[in-house]
Amino acid sequence: MATFDTISGREIKPFYTAGDLPNPNGSDGAPGVPGVPGAFPFTRGIHADMYRGRLWTMRQFAGFGSAEDTNQRFRFLLDKGQTGLSVAFDMPTLMGLDSDDPRARGEVGRLGVAIDCAADMQRLFDSIDLARVSTSMTINAPAPILMAFYLVAAERQGIAWDKLGGTLQNDTLKEFHAQNEFVFPPEPSVRLAVDVIEFCARHAPRWHPVSISGYHIREAGSTAGQELAFTLIDGIEYVERALQRGLKIDDFAPRLSFFFNAHNEFFEEIAKFRAARRIWARRMRDHYGAKNEASWRLRFHAQTAGCSLQAQQPGVNLIRVAYQAMAAVLGGCQSLHTNSMDETLSLPTEESVTLALRTQQVLAHETGVTSTADPLGGSYYVEALTDELEKEAETYFARIAEMGGVVRCVESGYFRREIASAAARYQREVESRKRVIVGVNDFIEPPQPIPTHKADPSVEPGQIERLRTLKAQRDPAKVAAALDRIRASAAGSQNLMPAFIDAARLEVTVGEMMSALADVLGRYKQTAGWW
Amino acid sequence: MATFDTISGREIKPFYTAGDLPNPNGSDGAPGVPGVPGAFPFTRGIHADMYRGRLWTMRQFAGFGSAEDTNQRFRFLLDKGQTGLSVAFDMPTLMGLDSDDPRARGEVGRLGVAIDCAADMQRLFDSIDLARVSTSMTINAPAPILMAFYLVAAERQGIAWDKLGGTLQNDTLKEFHAQNEFVFPPEPSVRLAVDVIEFCARHAPRWHPVSISGYHIREAGSTAGQELAFTLIDGIEYVERALQRGLKIDDFAPRLSFFFNAHNEFFEEIAKFRAARRIWARRMRDHYGAKNEASWRLRFHAQTAGCSLQAQQPGVNLIRVAYQAMAAVLGGCQSLHTNSMDETLSLPTEESVTLALRTQQVLAHETGVTSTADPLGGSYYVEALTDELEKEAETYFARIAEMGGVVRCVESGYFRREIASAAARYQREVESRKRVIVGVNDFIEPPQPIPTHKADPSVEPGQIERLRTLKAQRDPAKVAAALDRIRASAAGSQNLMPAFIDAARLEVTVGEMMSALADVLGRYKQTAGWW
Repeated sequence: MATFDTISGREIKPFYTAGDLPNPNGSDGAPGVPGVPGAFPFTRGIHADMYRGRLWTMRQFAGFGSAEDTNQRFRFLLDKGQTGLSVAFDMPTLMGLDSDDPRARGEVGRLGVAIDCAADMQRLFDSIDLARVSTSMTINAPAPILMAFYLVAAERQGIAWDKLGGTLQNDTLKEFHAQNEFVFPPEPSVRLAVDVIEFCARHAPRWHPVSISGYHIREAGSTAGQELAFTLIDGIEYVERALQRGLKIDDFAPRLSFFFNAHNEFFEEIAKFRAARRIWARRMRDHYGAKNEASWRLRFHAQTAGCSLQAQQPGVNLIRVAYQAMAAVLGGCQSLHTNSMDETLSLPTEESVTLALRTQQVLAHETGVTSTADPLGGSYYVEALTDELEKEAETYFARIAEMGGVVRCVESGYFRREIASAAARYQREVESRKRVIVGVNDFIEPPQPIPTHKADPSVEPGQIERLRTLKAQRDPAKVAAALDRIRASAAGSQNLMPAFIDAARLEVTVGEMMSALADVLGRYKQTAGWW
Repeated sequence: MATFDTISGREIKPFYTAGDLPNPNGSDGAPGVPGVPGAFPFTRGIHADMYRGRLWTMRQFAGFGSAEDTNQRFRFLLDKGQTGLSVAFDMPTLMGLDSDDPRARGEVGRLGVAIDCAADMQRLFDSIDLARVSTSMTINAPAPILMAFYLVAAERQGIAWDKLGGTLQNDTLKEFHAQNEFVFPPEPSVRLAVDVIEFCARHAPRWHPVSISGYHIREAGSTAGQELAFTLIDGIEYVERALQRGLKIDDFAPRLSFFFNAHNEFFEEIAKFRAARRIWARRMRDHYGAKNEASWRLRFHAQTAGCSLQAQQPGVNLIRVAYQAMAAVLGGCQSLHTNSMDETLSLPTEESVTLALRTQQVLAHETGVTSTADPLGGSYYVEALTDELEKEAETYFARIAEMGGVVRCVESGYFRREIASAAARYQREVESRKRVIVGVNDFIEPPQPIPTHKADPSVEPGQIERLRTLKAQRDPAKVAAALDRIRASAAGSQNLMPAFIDAARLEVTVGEMMSALADVLGRYKQTAGWW
């Protein structure tokens, strides 16, 4: 009999029986029993009625061109039945550069929407009621500044901040592990993230101020176990920092949220989501002493695995995405983005993004998998995998603690080396055809061109022109004072959010604020030990 | 909390626990334990290593135009990685009419391939080695005659019949329940089916002489439970008839095969497949005293639900098919047809059938669901559903026995009324939008035309011309003698297969043989009590 293992390298038995159920001495209570949905440790889901009570939020990540272009796509998606919004920013915005920065050249509005200031954010949500829609914003290094833009945009719609629902990614730790969109060194990066957590706990209590993200860790080639462990330990790091600041665990833990990858290996992914909930619940209750059940419940957004999509035979991506989406739902996600079949080639067309959304709708309305919570609960295989993943994560936590904690491990390059080693193993398996990828190393066909989204070349000059006009209309003294205040707050230990919001009200740009911050916090360079 | 039920109307609980596991007094052995894959009662699969040992056969149903046209499509599919063939015959062939019959007008080669005689069958498999390929033939009333054509085609390739692998549908009982392609009355229809079972047991021992089919019962609107019960009771009927003829159970039971629908309701479908195996194993061992384990093992082909495909937004069908295919595989199918997205509009194009096949390849090679047998084993929900479906089937068996058995229930219209009542309930649920169907009663869009397969108008005249030439070249006296022998065999109780084979060698046509049979067996008309 051949050896079989998951794409993460986990060995799988020919079959599983009751003898494989988790150890009777596990902390779930009765022997081999994973508990019930909606109860500690929430292995089986954070609600007893799960999707019967409420479906996950169907939230397609979207953004390109100008604020107007993306506003139009948002309204298109809402019209097709999408239930939440998710903003993709362009590369300059993600790196905290203004559209008129020379380093932004050629990238303005190309892979996401160009947002330079609060006025842009306001136009992005034109005719969309921010009190009624739930918005996710994928941004990290400049996250507090974009959050300030959003708060000001809400203010201009006349909406109180305590009415705002949504999520800010704001997870710079994983940028160091995997995604590389960091600007400041690890310590001040964590500080900025915690500033948003603290500010929102006080002023925007329905908002999720951080989305602790494993998605990009997985995209960089990690195993499922690494994604799970590194994400949760990052989360624990944010919790520790918030506690050090004097916040009480139950004041902010209920609004922490997570973001995981939904990859190909169907059952291992489901087990990963189940293990994440169990680990988090135990930590929050038993280690941090959280009393509010909402603090124990790990809520997550899932996105299907971009790295699993192939440029060859793009129609086949629809199938991959369908299976990945089902794994996310059987794993109990609260929100889901399904990739479009053409995302390896370009930004998605309206047709392809509609089909990606239809995938979620078929899953929700036609397959019946939403009729009962955690339908896989009790499966010998899934329960055994869940337990194995939990153990794997705990082993990583212990190792990271021994090595001095998360920030130390970022600086030493530990996370990156672990991920790179897993990515290399997978790559060898594909090259040796141990792993078949349809259309790539088997079932190959000649290229099949499909219609793709075309970028509008007038976006960049238009955005630069608008930004220059705006900058010219501001009072330079007020702008300078706002930036001085940011520098002063950064040099001290004050929460930076009030300074960002005041600057945003004056249309101070993301690039200006980031520069002011960098004057004080410095810029981070990768160190030699990283690879 | 709202009420939730499956598309078959089965009520589902918000969640399931160990308390929902099957009754400890069930015959599986230990309390609440469904046994292990590869062991009686095979709930968890017929092999201990399942797809690790061997993947299911990827078998796309295909046929159109002339024998040459379909031969070309077969070779296209084998080239794309398909692992078995499946012949779709045109309507005249299915009804036992020659292509030159006036009643065949407009239908020759339209929805399947036109096969009139052994020479056509020979051309259908030109350059395809019948000793190496596994072929399925979907045909019922004239099944023994088409089987004779296939045996003669093999003979002409120089291949011994004991080398032939494949399946003949040959299940006329379900034609009365659902599909309407019957010709003779129920009693002689069953006799003909058993003739093939008997003949193959002696002369083509690797061939599956019947594929006892629930697929069409489900397509007609039955519930999952009805599909399960009516299919298995039909199978039991064939077993009873074969035993009455003096065959020993272990001489033919190992080569019986089944054909089920893989519909939308993901977990109920998986449970249906698991229940089918358990019921059959118990019947074969405990009731019929089969000693050969192969007699206990229910093997099945699955096809995704044609009735679930929608003409609106055809791309969405790819998603439905992907989920249905996964249910078939998690249910342990031995062979699978995945419908093409355009099958509600026309016969599939090469592009759409390729994508349907790619769906199976992604499932097999990328999702990891093949790495362990019965990955859902132990799931509280799936085990409870499996048990419920088994009980539902047993209740139907008892009712059918009380009403005088299968043939009596066919004649009284019982099966049709049961199915019609389920179909009507479902239809009401769609009309009232209790059931959302994407693109049909929600998420509606303007029509989106897609490229479809175009029928070749020269097929019908070409086939008729070829048939006339062939008929003219035969020795009329020999043809008449062959038909007389068929009539004589039919009037007695002899196995008809030798007479069909001898006639096939003389190029006697399907229409000629069917007419000769009808002279003796009569033709069946639906009776008033049917609806």
